[in-house]
Amino acid sequence: MEQKEVSQAVIGRLPRYYRYLGELMEEGVERISSRDLSTKMKVTSSQIRQDLNQFGGFGQTGYGYHVPSLYDEIGRLLGLNKNHTMIVIGAGNLGQALANYANFERRGFNICAMFDQRPELIGSKTIRDIPILDIRALEEYLHGHEVDIAVLAIPKTGAIPVAKRLVEAGIRAIWNFSHTDLEVPEDVMVENVHLSESLMKLSYRMKGRGEE
Amino acid sequence: MEQKEVSQAVIGRLPRYYRYLGELMEEGVERISSRDLSTKMKVTSSQIRQDLNQFGGFGQTGYGYHVPSLYDEIGRLLGLNKNHTMIVIGAGNLGQALANYANFERRGFNICAMFDQRPELIGSKTIRDIPILDIRALEEYLHGHEVDIAVLAIPKTGAIPVAKRLVEAGIRAIWNFSHTDLEVPEDVMVENVHLSESLMKLSYRMKGRGEE
Repeated sequence: MEQKEVSQAVIGRLPRYYRYLGELMEEGVERISSRDLSTKMKVTSSQIRQDLNQFGGFGQTGYGYHVPSLYDEIGRLLGLNKNHTMIVIGAGNLGQALANYANFERRGFNICAMFDQRPELIGSKTIRDIPILDIRALEEYLHGHEVDIAVLAIPKTGAIPVAKRLVEAGIRAIWNFSHTDLEVPEDVMVENVHLSESLMKLSYRMKGRGEE
Repeated sequence: MEQKEVSQAVIGRLPRYYRYLGELMEEGVERISSRDLSTKMKVTSSQIRQDLNQFGGFGQTGYGYHVPSLYDEIGRLLGLNKNHTMIVIGAGNLGQALANYANFERRGFNICAMFDQRPELIGSKTIRDIPILDIRALEEYLHGHEVDIAVLAIPKTGAIPVAKRLVEAGIRAIWNFSHTDLEVPEDVMVENVHLSESLMKLSYRMKGRGEE
């Protein structure tokens, strides 16, 4: 199946399809029509048909989509058929929240270590058996372990130098929670989660409602 | 100044302009040309001019943008000129991470209380003087306090009933970290932060790099 033509907009919507299909699987649903999926997801059924037709003919007229096949195929498209190892930089509340989030593991994202510079955190406790290591040992660790993704959960002041160290040590994917844009080589993927910006969008929409 | 014509795409970019302008202010920069801002933000200068011209003529040819004015105006557009009170539902790691994040307060988002159902958390400790209250007292609290935004930092199973309670108690804006879509009346604003979906997008892009 050729997938090169799947558009960026569709890719952006795939995780949401994947989530709904996963919920349907949990409920034991085998097949679903684009109309029922449309009602559930509050997206038009023509949008659903258009999106899902881009990567194959899962929908048979009158039979709907075969939920497990579609779920697997979308998972494969999203790269979820392989496991990913992750490290988390920053063992503060946010880093610990991410390390505690069992959902990631279920999807094959396994956190193997956390790093911090605070002596009271290093080695002192483990979250779900994930060790908290000294940030000074970062390069040594990366030399001995294959790590796919580094999660940056530190304040913005430290983010840029740490990102530089990660890239130099061979990391090619960064999930960035630090409130700054990273400058990395082209072959390094960065996915940003800028929480303040999300909150500002909410604030903008509240204003639009005429609450001022 | 008429603002109704500002497009959704521009709105989505405003928080990033706001962040960069804030950094320039911290550095004491008074004026910046669209070209220099373009280099800094890695956006074309014609994009910047187009975006910023949508809400007024801040740029004077040859003089550039007046940083403090532009910062204030964008802040006003985003609704940041007023304070917002917030409560956080869920005092686990994520809730605590959000409560600890001083950046929100700097932008006028003040967390006044957290709520949880776990007896060991209720009343037992406070984060930056923010009390952790019993979720059973949610309605009572909302009756006596003006709250603009409720943050949902609980697992998805509890999210839907709690959102219902929030809406019934008068909350009109929800910042949702629970991994589910909320069903709320039209006049309730929901801004979702679906962390798993962000991670899947990263995974997709890694796959596109041909690492499989």
